[in-house]
Amino acid sequence: VKTTVSRRPVRVPGFRFAGVRCGLKEDGKRDVALIVSDRPAAAAGAFTRNRVRAAPVRIGQERLRAGRLQAIVINSGNANAYTGPSGDAVARAMTATVARALGIPEALVVPSSTGKIGVPLPRARVLRGVRAACRALDTAGFAAALEGMMTTDAFPKFAVERVTLGGRRVTIAAMAKGAGMIAPNMATLLTYVLTDACVSRAGARQALRRALPDSFNAIVVDGDTSTNDTAILLANGVAGNAEIGPDSRAFPAFAAAVARAMRTVARLVVKDGEGATKVVDIRVRGAASDREAARVADTIARSPLCKTAFYGGDPYAGRLICAAGYSGADFSPDRLNIFVGNVAVVRRGRPQGAAAERRAARVMARPEFAITLDLHCGRGTAYRVASDLTAEYVHFNSAYRT
Amino acid sequence: VKTTVSRRPVRVPGFRFAGVRCGLKEDGKRDVALIVSDRPAAAAGAFTRNRVRAAPVRIGQERLRAGRLQAIVINSGNANAYTGPSGDAVARAMTATVARALGIPEALVVPSSTGKIGVPLPRARVLRGVRAACRALDTAGFAAALEGMMTTDAFPKFAVERVTLGGRRVTIAAMAKGAGMIAPNMATLLTYVLTDACVSRAGARQALRRALPDSFNAIVVDGDTSTNDTAILLANGVAGNAEIGPDSRAFPAFAAAVARAMRTVARLVVKDGEGATKVVDIRVRGAASDREAARVADTIARSPLCKTAFYGGDPYAGRLICAAGYSGADFSPDRLNIFVGNVAVVRRGRPQGAAAERRAARVMARPEFAITLDLHCGRGTAYRVASDLTAEYVHFNSAYRT
Repeated sequence: VKTTVSRRPVRVPGFRFAGVRCGLKEDGKRDVALIVSDRPAAAAGAFTRNRVRAAPVRIGQERLRAGRLQAIVINSGNANAYTGPSGDAVARAMTATVARALGIPEALVVPSSTGKIGVPLPRARVLRGVRAACRALDTAGFAAALEGMMTTDAFPKFAVERVTLGGRRVTIAAMAKGAGMIAPNMATLLTYVLTDACVSRAGARQALRRALPDSFNAIVVDGDTSTNDTAILLANGVAGNAEIGPDSRAFPAFAAAVARAMRTVARLVVKDGEGATKVVDIRVRGAASDREAARVADTIARSPLCKTAFYGGDPYAGRLICAAGYSGADFSPDRLNIFVGNVAVVRRGRPQGAAAERRAARVMARPEFAITLDLHCGRGTAYRVASDLTAEYVHFNSAYRT
Repeated sequence: VKTTVSRRPVRVPGFRFAGVRCGLKEDGKRDVALIVSDRPAAAAGAFTRNRVRAAPVRIGQERLRAGRLQAIVINSGNANAYTGPSGDAVARAMTATVARALGIPEALVVPSSTGKIGVPLPRARVLRGVRAACRALDTAGFAAALEGMMTTDAFPKFAVERVTLGGRRVTIAAMAKGAGMIAPNMATLLTYVLTDACVSRAGARQALRRALPDSFNAIVVDGDTSTNDTAILLANGVAGNAEIGPDSRAFPAFAAAVARAMRTVARLVVKDGEGATKVVDIRVRGAASDREAARVADTIARSPLCKTAFYGGDPYAGRLICAAGYSGADFSPDRLNIFVGNVAVVRRGRPQGAAAERRAARVMARPEFAITLDLHCGRGTAYRVASDLTAEYVHFNSAYRT
């Protein structure tokens, strides 16, 4: 999958960025990134539900509680996960180094890491990188920071929204790294949403929470949920608008812009899924509940048989019917409708035959298409975005380390 | 994966078999099979938990309730699933045809089908095949019947046990077709266990129930559960031993032989998993409960990242740790031990480094190896047998029909 990326530097008023090399990655690419707000920002976060949480995730959860942050220090090439007390110490040392260099409280700095699990993060090396990043901070450093957080990503993933809130023009920029281990919930390794809007802590939390279900919690690459998934929203207020809380008139416009940016970036994560050649929107409606709908959508999004059919462009409805059947959702098979794009391949439980399949095959030949299942037994809906399963995924992941 | 299969005909006293061609398969291979006992047999069955059950599954469940059967009529090349009332009528016509030709009650005949979903099963063609099968019945027809039930299987899968029960030599033969859509529960499309032992209906049910957890309910190829999964045990009593019930002295020996035959055949199904090159035994112990252990074992057995690592022979423990972490099981990551074969790659939460990984890589280079996780927090255990995920699986399944 290729995508065109604008080369104009992304700027978010009141934020500086850096991306440097310290030798954590074997390929010599940038492996430390730093995001700093000129002033403490309202902050909200969401983290992996994996039982094994990386050291930086535990520290981030602890520091996010206060709802204020000023800096995020990130390394790639090593997840600092499953690294015991020394891993925790290195992660804290990363934030202490930033705090000292920039003269800000350590409690306002959170660490993030992504890469290999169970390998000690080399302390001296990463701290050298962190110090270099503090010196390299620049309002035009967004792209360098994005490169510093990438691992197997084929291209940088970001989205920028500009909206007028309370008479002020504000910027909302979302950046993410992804590629593998992508599944609900919190389906990205690392994503940061940065805005100069003035937002209360509750407003930031609410906006992030509303945006997650249809963005990072809707995407499936391989069904594996990482130990390091992190999403953080920072709003530094430099735009000077009246503070936006959950009940403000400006809140819906702000939340919608955050949601758009996050959906765009989440979709790019699927597009850049390891080995992916297709992006498939999976919509389920008419389920007994949203939860039942999610079971069907998740099962299809993860089924190796459905995902290889997406890859092959095979409109055979049998695999979708079968996946819906074993999803655990309660429905009546003879009321099921299935659409590929706008083509009905199953209507009221009846496969629509070869002509419909041929039209569906033309839809599935596109790089992006939608699959819709209507269970006709209630009002529950669910939405997922999935990549296909390709031989390239297997080649890539069977040779990741050896 | 290749395997050596004995070419001596399998015979089970009191059973006759047939496998014929009627043109359901495009490649011209046998596509109708028939298994007939000389007299009504004690019968037990287990079926798919998919919400979408094929017509033959529904009829089988209904007729198995009485616990007596005399014949099983099978077609491959078409699953007769999601085929509406006419699919049901064709399945019943298959059993009526057998009953008429052999002069036995229709209620003692069950149908089975495997193949494509949602495509009408051609009535005249399949009934022609069924009539031909009735004429071809032979005590030496086991291999022909097995071929008649195969779809994407690369080799026939069967196991034969001979044991002495109550002074009589009895035969227990298990036959299966598998390959894709293999996941707990009832993780095979079709499997039949045939014995000349004299067993009560309760004894047959009990023996089948005990054998399932470590055989067909333990195997994972791709995590997809089919609409047609069926396991049936027939015991016709021709051996003349005293009837074995669940409380008989001979029951443990009988149940153990059934379990051995089913485990052997289930393992062959994994070995013949679509594209599979490895068979991996996954054992979890020390979990808070068997259920929690099963969560961990299932997650590893299905994780695309773990399965591609099995393929690549990559001993990187990070993927196993991560999968255990998102399995939903409750455990303390710092008490976890992980073994690859006999090599400890993680001990009490500490990865054991490069030397251990090199030794583990040598174990993983073998076509069959074991992964053991000890959570050290209880007495719960689970066992799964999984295939690896290969580029061949993707090639095969992305080109299945188009």
